[in-house]
Amino acid sequence: MTIETTIAIMAQAGREAANQLVRVSSDQKNAALCAIAAGLEKEAAFIKQENGKDLVRAQEKGLSAAMIDRLTVKDETIAAMVSGLGDVVGLNDPVGTMSPTWIRPNGLQVARMRIPLGVIGIIYESRPNVTVDAAGLCLKAGNAVILRGGSEAFYSNQALAQIIHGALASTELPQTAVQVVAVREREAVLALLKQEESVDLIIPRGGEGLIRFVVQHSKIPVLKHYKGVCHVYVDDGADFEMAREICLNAKVQRPGVCNAMETLLVHQAAAEAFLPEMAQRLTEAGVEIRGCDKTCRIVATAQKARESDWPAEYLDLILAIKVIDNMDEAICHIAKYSSRHTEAIVTRSYDRAKRFVREVDSSVVLVNASTRFNDGGQLGLGAEIGISTSKLHAFGPMGLEELTTTKFVVQGSGQIRE
Amino acid sequence: MTIETTIAIMAQAGREAANQLVRVSSDQKNAALCAIAAGLEKEAAFIKQENGKDLVRAQEKGLSAAMIDRLTVKDETIAAMVSGLGDVVGLNDPVGTMSPTWIRPNGLQVARMRIPLGVIGIIYESRPNVTVDAAGLCLKAGNAVILRGGSEAFYSNQALAQIIHGALASTELPQTAVQVVAVREREAVLALLKQEESVDLIIPRGGEGLIRFVVQHSKIPVLKHYKGVCHVYVDDGADFEMAREICLNAKVQRPGVCNAMETLLVHQAAAEAFLPEMAQRLTEAGVEIRGCDKTCRIVATAQKARESDWPAEYLDLILAIKVIDNMDEAICHIAKYSSRHTEAIVTRSYDRAKRFVREVDSSVVLVNASTRFNDGGQLGLGAEIGISTSKLHAFGPMGLEELTTTKFVVQGSGQIRE
Repeated sequence: MTIETTIAIMAQAGREAANQLVRVSSDQKNAALCAIAAGLEKEAAFIKQENGKDLVRAQEKGLSAAMIDRLTVKDETIAAMVSGLGDVVGLNDPVGTMSPTWIRPNGLQVARMRIPLGVIGIIYESRPNVTVDAAGLCLKAGNAVILRGGSEAFYSNQALAQIIHGALASTELPQTAVQVVAVREREAVLALLKQEESVDLIIPRGGEGLIRFVVQHSKIPVLKHYKGVCHVYVDDGADFEMAREICLNAKVQRPGVCNAMETLLVHQAAAEAFLPEMAQRLTEAGVEIRGCDKTCRIVATAQKARESDWPAEYLDLILAIKVIDNMDEAICHIAKYSSRHTEAIVTRSYDRAKRFVREVDSSVVLVNASTRFNDGGQLGLGAEIGISTSKLHAFGPMGLEELTTTKFVVQGSGQIRE
Repeated sequence: MTIETTIAIMAQAGREAANQLVRVSSDQKNAALCAIAAGLEKEAAFIKQENGKDLVRAQEKGLSAAMIDRLTVKDETIAAMVSGLGDVVGLNDPVGTMSPTWIRPNGLQVARMRIPLGVIGIIYESRPNVTVDAAGLCLKAGNAVILRGGSEAFYSNQALAQIIHGALASTELPQTAVQVVAVREREAVLALLKQEESVDLIIPRGGEGLIRFVVQHSKIPVLKHYKGVCHVYVDDGADFEMAREICLNAKVQRPGVCNAMETLLVHQAAAEAFLPEMAQRLTEAGVEIRGCDKTCRIVATAQKARESDWPAEYLDLILAIKVIDNMDEAICHIAKYSSRHTEAIVTRSYDRAKRFVREVDSSVVLVNASTRFNDGGQLGLGAEIGISTSKLHAFGPMGLEELTTTKFVVQGSGQIRE
């Protein structure tokens, strides 16, 4: 069988599973998630054994230490998957919930019912835990899911698939509700991206290269973010000590993630008072500073920033700093360079907080808080499947609700259209 | 300048206009819509004169009478555009409205704010009124819009653009908030579909051919429906007289539209009592019936249906009828053949109404009402920009709210992430 045929059959089976999942209760879905968790705990040795095969191959192929670290399944990794499933069990099931009903002059009662999206394809890289995390969230929202992990995690993902299938069978859900692609070739990704009749949504998770590849080739809607070029704007008259704590947290608490600050914008009237101590604390934390001319005049340790620093996503202990004339310039700078991911203002001004919130076009806009809060868990959505920086369907962190949509339900008593 | 460059410049200008529109109040937007309406009334003679040029060309090119009818701008057409703008002025502005706020354990206050999508591209065929209707809705939702009408309506659309630009200038909105593409070549459509950096959403309006062309070539998310293969299921024990009224309305009130019934499904226990009179009334209304074997045994005038009748969108006075064993078969038939547009059940059973509503995967599901109610105006959304049968972002009729999205607004007092 060709790879294309294999994937087409999986997509069709996914559609049939999705049709069955519409009839499944929350209790059944939760029972399946609990059975998966129990299976993971019971088969921990088997998972680690299969993961070992991937690790041997990874070492033979000379993968980087960071990649091997992401690939490795330890007891803690399994415990985290089990506890993640428990969290999803605890979340409210959005499927079947109804909006308030409105009544038309002719007596028709109209409401929106929340329903699953249908079939979701997830394309990801080395971390095997995504197999379980994504399957759990998609299943709880009533969707069938087709998972295509990286070829470097092949044996780990197949082992996890076996456990998931056992759990689905034992709780009388269709095994095709969760399918893991067992084809190493990249052709499988291309084939999956063409199944627009059977797959409703694609979510890629990984580096910018993978995501651009998926967007370029997909015939199916894609929810994604390419990168996070996040800004903090420190306003004139802000609480400077609060601002320093927020900036330090946004930059150094976890510099390698998409909601870390990459550029700091400072009002000119605040620069002299705010920047020297800020720069000193950043430098102590190991941060390299690249500043505009004004910044370099105030901060002796700053290197001169180039144009390429303003759109840069460093994902590292590097920070670009720009002194700007006023908030209008801050908003323009953000409009030009930001990735629409996360921006924050530190201010004491009611008017400027209000304007920043209204005019900055990013998925999460914060006042007096760290950019690191752009995260489904931190914002109270429960577990998240990813963050969207495109505006269609979902903008920002995506939880269970974003894995669903709504249809209109109309209840009548014989109404016809005049 | 090449067509590609022309369109890229328009897209970039659209993005800049969208950035400005974020600051514009509801009053300003309403003033602009009123100014457009006033301009249309004042310049009615000019519009009809320019439309006349299109009509001359259309006759020279031998366009069909139906196409020429759609292209013709009469006094009533202008009056309808004016009154449509008035309706949109009367709708609540969704932009800036906030969801209820929730509070995190660390005191962060989180809410969702409704915001414009940004820049919307509309690609449509001959009706010039779409230029005004779509511009009005997009503008009210705070979006910049790029309109590309059919080349057969070139002069009409340019005349409308001129009036719209005058109105925008007189109300101090950027003229680039509404741009009408003045390039006849289809290359302009292809160029527009590639502006994924500057255009957030594409909405095609027209025949299935146009829509498939747009979906095939777009790098930008597309909201669309290809067709409406709508079903009515008449249940055992239904009120047969109510069922006949609903079916007659769904089929003949306006057979050429996407929410007209194309297939009637009848429970076997209802067929003998329901079908003969139903068929007689349909036949009297000029409807040709194509039935399954059982239908043909009951209805003498029915022709035998072929497999190709079940997925057919006739848009005409033709109806496929199938007698089915039970509601499970009805739901399976719909899952197999429907276009996810609109389906209705006529029943007296609480359980079956509930199951039909839950399990039928269409954008609008009705109980005891005509399929013809799938329409933004009829369902109370106000004016509509179209109907979506794909599930991402919007599923069903799309009004003002569907031309917006939400971002997260987080208000803190110095919170950092531990």
